[in-house]
Amino acid sequence: MKDQFLAYIKNLQDTITSKLEEVDGKAQFKEDVWTRPEGGGGRTRVIENGAIFEKGGVNISAVHGILPESMQEYFKVSDCDFFACGLSLVLHPKNPFIPTIHANWRYFEMYDNDGKIISSWFGGGQDLTPYYLFKEDAIHFHQTCKNACDKHHIDFYPEYKKRCDSYFWNTHRNEARGIGGLFFDYLKETDNLSLKDRCDFVMEIGDSFLESYVPIVEKRKNLAYTKEQKDWQEIRRGRYVEFNLIHDKGTLFGLKTNGRIESILMSLPPKVQWRYSYSPKAKSEEEKLIKALQKPKEWL
Amino acid sequence: MKDQFLAYIKNLQDTITSKLEEVDGKAQFKEDVWTRPEGGGGRTRVIENGAIFEKGGVNISAVHGILPESMQEYFKVSDCDFFACGLSLVLHPKNPFIPTIHANWRYFEMYDNDGKIISSWFGGGQDLTPYYLFKEDAIHFHQTCKNACDKHHIDFYPEYKKRCDSYFWNTHRNEARGIGGLFFDYLKETDNLSLKDRCDFVMEIGDSFLESYVPIVEKRKNLAYTKEQKDWQEIRRGRYVEFNLIHDKGTLFGLKTNGRIESILMSLPPKVQWRYSYSPKAKSEEEKLIKALQKPKEWL
Repeated sequence: MKDQFLAYIKNLQDTITSKLEEVDGKAQFKEDVWTRPEGGGGRTRVIENGAIFEKGGVNISAVHGILPESMQEYFKVSDCDFFACGLSLVLHPKNPFIPTIHANWRYFEMYDNDGKIISSWFGGGQDLTPYYLFKEDAIHFHQTCKNACDKHHIDFYPEYKKRCDSYFWNTHRNEARGIGGLFFDYLKETDNLSLKDRCDFVMEIGDSFLESYVPIVEKRKNLAYTKEQKDWQEIRRGRYVEFNLIHDKGTLFGLKTNGRIESILMSLPPKVQWRYSYSPKAKSEEEKLIKALQKPKEWL
Repeated sequence: MKDQFLAYIKNLQDTITSKLEEVDGKAQFKEDVWTRPEGGGGRTRVIENGAIFEKGGVNISAVHGILPESMQEYFKVSDCDFFACGLSLVLHPKNPFIPTIHANWRYFEMYDNDGKIISSWFGGGQDLTPYYLFKEDAIHFHQTCKNACDKHHIDFYPEYKKRCDSYFWNTHRNEARGIGGLFFDYLKETDNLSLKDRCDFVMEIGDSFLESYVPIVEKRKNLAYTKEQKDWQEIRRGRYVEFNLIHDKGTLFGLKTNGRIESILMSLPPKVQWRYSYSPKAKSEEEKLIKALQKPKEWL
């Protein structure tokens, strides 16, 4: 299973980065291959100062060894070996009318002393963070997520959509980071679903990524914007930073387990603003966004 | 004691904000008075888009009530009442040759069921975060801190300087946030020092603040800077954000205890950049700063 999924994400990284380079038309991804002293490593690909993408990364990693102590506590297990691999991506577009996107799909294995798998599962998801709200873009994104889910189980979309809304919640601001998408974790083998079924599902979701996002980029990339709209994007990016550094388990986990800092923090936006007690004008497009983020919404 | 210290910080807020307005010459502090539903409140004063200060805040608060649960765990006590008051300030200057400064001085009381004080202490400190390193500025800042400390005990400066270096350490970057200053906490009554002695010491430190910082501002405010130097300041401000949101106990504490978000996060810089794997040119002034932050240094 691990070989199959690792081969899948390697291939998916290639597919996604070549398509995004084609969409951008100007910048190319730069690749950093790194190794983890305790075992494994990764292939980080970052794009900066593109025509479309101001900053972004599409990274894969596959790490293994003794489960770090902080992770032992988290999973409530004792000393054991583990393997984890996944693809993580974040794209921060230049144009404030194009939303930021984040996705992550991963596979995890834990072993007993004889090297036998004691537990294995898939996790991940994707979510959209717009700066201006286009209802049709939100619907397109959620519909693509739902279509991919529905091929596997009719309950998946409502369940993972709900979990996504609850995970990407900026508690200290009492608002959502964005308009959600999918979030799933601990997808293990069950009576009805084999690990292969789980894997097929996650690959289906991964394969749907470009279709969920690229049409939105194409639709919005030529819209003209003002300095004020760009400022608004940078202020909202501040909330993205707050979520990632204060709440995001993946980020904090990486920082605490001696992960590769630059690969983890590539998720942070290129330019960000914090203004004191800023709030948009009443009935503006900016206020419309804020209101939509105050309560999870059924887009479909 | 609480009345005396509260009166002191109220007065100190006035002294500091009027002097800083005079130094800035353009912008003025805007005041927000707020109340905490569970008891107490504060007076937040924020300056933005000044000639000198791009963003900054000088805030006081005095809160009381039942000790929040997260704080009970932190202090390892059970259900009890508390009182806490303090002054917090952060100033982010426009000119990258002027350092950012942070300071906080606070007093804390905990009570038994009869309202008797069971524990009380002072805490706080101040630290400097330059973007370019002027050795004479670092010496001036530390010397002013030391002079104030020495009036009370010859051991205070070396001890609190060391604690400051260890507290403001960005573990995930393996570098200091800045060039340090003072950090002290749990300054309680002892055999040799009364609570009044502790209070006198903290007030001495608070009184030395303007002298420790304003001469540096005056010395650097007219230095011309390039866009590249401004970019460098904004990149370094990213590390400031990382420290405050990932490591700073005061910030995380405020966010978890339902503090006033905008007063807590006024510490975040106005404009910030994150570039992937950025490192300055060899032997540049920027690299000189990085090297100085890799290991705490004795400035005096």
